[in-house]
Amino acid sequence: MSTSDRITGVLSPVVTPFKPDLSPDPERFARQCRWLLSQNVGLAVFGTNSEANSLSTEEKIELLDRLVNAGVDPSRMMPGTGCCALSDSVRLTAHAMKLGCGGVLMLPPFYYKGVPDDGLFRNFAEVIERVGDRRLRIYLYHIPPVSQAGAKDSSGDWNNTKAYLDNFAKAGFDVFPGSETFLLQGLRHGGVGCISATANVNPAAIARLFATWQSADADAQQERLNTIRGIFAKYPMIPALKGAIAHYGGEASWATVRPPLVELTATQQASLVADLDKAGFTMPGLRS
Amino acid sequence: MSTSDRITGVLSPVVTPFKPDLSPDPERFARQCRWLLSQNVGLAVFGTNSEANSLSTEEKIELLDRLVNAGVDPSRMMPGTGCCALSDSVRLTAHAMKLGCGGVLMLPPFYYKGVPDDGLFRNFAEVIERVGDRRLRIYLYHIPPVSQAGAKDSSGDWNNTKAYLDNFAKAGFDVFPGSETFLLQGLRHGGVGCISATANVNPAAIARLFATWQSADADAQQERLNTIRGIFAKYPMIPALKGAIAHYGGEASWATVRPPLVELTATQQASLVADLDKAGFTMPGLRS
Repeated sequence: MSTSDRITGVLSPVVTPFKPDLSPDPERFARQCRWLLSQNVGLAVFGTNSEANSLSTEEKIELLDRLVNAGVDPSRMMPGTGCCALSDSVRLTAHAMKLGCGGVLMLPPFYYKGVPDDGLFRNFAEVIERVGDRRLRIYLYHIPPVSQAGAKDSSGDWNNTKAYLDNFAKAGFDVFPGSETFLLQGLRHGGVGCISATANVNPAAIARLFATWQSADADAQQERLNTIRGIFAKYPMIPALKGAIAHYGGEASWATVRPPLVELTATQQASLVADLDKAGFTMPGLRS
Repeated sequence: MSTSDRITGVLSPVVTPFKPDLSPDPERFARQCRWLLSQNVGLAVFGTNSEANSLSTEEKIELLDRLVNAGVDPSRMMPGTGCCALSDSVRLTAHAMKLGCGGVLMLPPFYYKGVPDDGLFRNFAEVIERVGDRRLRIYLYHIPPVSQAGAKDSSGDWNNTKAYLDNFAKAGFDVFPGSETFLLQGLRHGGVGCISATANVNPAAIARLFATWQSADADAQQERLNTIRGIFAKYPMIPALKGAIAHYGGEASWATVRPPLVELTATQQASLVADLDKAGFTMPGLRS
């Protein structure tokens, strides 16, 4: 695979819609993915913000199949396939490859803490060997606040992101900061985009900065993105993303999360929407 | 279910044997479970020390079936069935109930950190409702160093264990300290046994203290248990347990662990065995 075939740009860890019985809703999921693609945002389905670890491996495989069957382009997908159990990681990664996904985003096995580097290396080596597909392109997912494993997180620490970029970007190791907060800085240092929770709700604006980062208004665009992100950051992120989609898409059932998460309270929801409205926030094209 | 039907005594989070290709070995697993039962130790299969989270839900279901088919008494089993995904927890718990397991030991959904108590409550409530079996007896598994959720850990903090016992034991809430270190103290305060990693390797001696805790030599027994545990505690616990079984059972392949864990080095293994030999440690009846 040449460098030019690789995924770049802005990706969204797509939030997963649930039915009232807490089962995943494949139709609504496909609709949301199509909307994100229409906003020039790629699909990091099964990320932390997708409640991926609240889904079984079977549920993830079924959802991937449904997306592809619904005509969503697998080359724009970078599903999260890193599980605690090697057997699950291999099964899910192999399935993603079979479907033609552009890459996979792998958490380290996150249950045990303080595991040796050799053990982490062996985990990824086993996945690569067992999947045995030359098209496989693994993106390592460093998120210590929840996974507590692997190297240091890139999100929230620009110095760390910069160290990744300075040391690895030129060698062809693609680095995606974990938030649009570092999108512009990242691009200026050799980054290839970002994977951000708020790309679920503010996709077009984030994608526009990626497309026009060398323009004169880039810093102003970045500032505007930060304002919107700052509003979401005042709430538990996943319930807030789903609350916004429910409100601006006019579909209340979007708010549903699986335990152990809980939905925003009515007060939180009202205050989120009031803040967003005041900031002139919209989700164009979402309402079907 | 009356109090007298409930599981008491010493339970072992049974270590899971793997074949060289890292798949679970059901025959060796059944043999190990039978040996533990012969030492008067119950079967907390799929605990942290069982590498349970390195197994897929299918692998766990298959292993449970194989144990029961091999004649291992399900009423002596308290399998770990708490997963990150509600769907997995429900499926595994329902299967354990179908097989007639004496109880289930449930981790909270452990991926997300700092989740609201309401979300944790809802997780267990959904499991109970969806499994819908009056025989279901859930033991809550508090292990913050890895799960980072739920109430405080009992293991390693006697004051916390004692608070559980003082507040809940009389109300019929059974408390198992998570290590034999607190077995005697626990029993003196209304505890019902212990669930301990080292019950994998030192089962008879721990079970003997449970059975004779009111005898004159109870404190001396406890001290001896602490000495053996202290030797294991100098190494990564799971590789050390498996290393001891491999050595004293004369079956080298028992040492295999799944990534992200790694086996003891040859030096560690030699030093572990030397320490144990010096302490007069044996595993009677293990070698088949």
